[in-house]
Amino acid sequence: MLFQSTVPQFIKMLTNLNAILDKAAIHAETKKFDVEVLLNSRLAPDQFNFIRQIQIACDTAKLGCSRLTGKEAPTHADTEKTLPELKARIESTVTYLQKFTDADFADSATRKITHARWGDEYLTGEDFVQHHALPNLYFHITTAYSILRHNGVEIGKKDYLGKMPFKK
Amino acid sequence: MLFQSTVPQFIKMLTNLNAILDKAAIHAETKKFDVEVLLNSRLAPDQFNFIRQIQIACDTAKLGCSRLTGKEAPTHADTEKTLPELKARIESTVTYLQKFTDADFADSATRKITHARWGDEYLTGEDFVQHHALPNLYFHITTAYSILRHNGVEIGKKDYLGKMPFKK
Repeated sequence: MLFQSTVPQFIKMLTNLNAILDKAAIHAETKKFDVEVLLNSRLAPDQFNFIRQIQIACDTAKLGCSRLTGKEAPTHADTEKTLPELKARIESTVTYLQKFTDADFADSATRKITHARWGDEYLTGEDFVQHHALPNLYFHITTAYSILRHNGVEIGKKDYLGKMPFKK
Repeated sequence: MLFQSTVPQFIKMLTNLNAILDKAAIHAETKKFDVEVLLNSRLAPDQFNFIRQIQIACDTAKLGCSRLTGKEAPTHADTEKTLPELKARIESTVTYLQKFTDADFADSATRKITHARWGDEYLTGEDFVQHHALPNLYFHITTAYSILRHNGVEIGKKDYLGKMPFKK
């Protein structure tokens, strides 16, 4: 069950984010400015910039699934400076996520999720997904989206949400 | 199961949002400007303002649970203009959500969720929560948060996330 509420949705949201980056590139090209201006933008002087928002969104998905399953995650050095590097970061994260199966999450709901910052306290896997992983993922993707939106990139909520799995 | 991943989290996030509104009020008071300036702010000229973000966040929770359970939702006229009115809107939504029980969601996962805009297509309740209700709720709360953050209100991610249900 925790597989279903994490992996496919993380992949979907990161894929949407990757497409949003393409729209940022098009906007910069059209307006003839360096896209790295956008990548280094933020909404407040003491807020993480766009690059860092993307890195954290990726890590929320990557480390979230790693913690929930005990499967080791690839390391990323957080050195991205360009749009192609940021897109590669997202794609590498998606590739990692795509290897998970439902079976990897068999004991995730009751697994004790710990964190250096949490001392000797823990969250159950189920609480971790609901209170930490999902709200954090959406927070950083929406913040990245907002930085672009504020700077005139032509994106809308549909770019963020992606396709709905409609049935007939 | 869908009760657990919606109602308590919707209540928590709206309660966090309500506390964020109090911080906006304090900021306006300290800086001696009318808080309604913040309420009418937005990050892009064609984006919904702060008030509308709060209204949509509330409706995402309210109408989401109503659709998932078939239980009628109270109507709200979307006429809020002041901070106390916005807080009342949030509180009225929370009061509605608090009446739900696990049993109300017994058939929600497989329920067909329809929408005037979706024509004859539908989402299963499970897909609706994952692809629509949760991403939308977090989107509008984070956007409201970002509008305040951009305007100097002293809030951080902890205000958005709220308390973690840590265990020892």
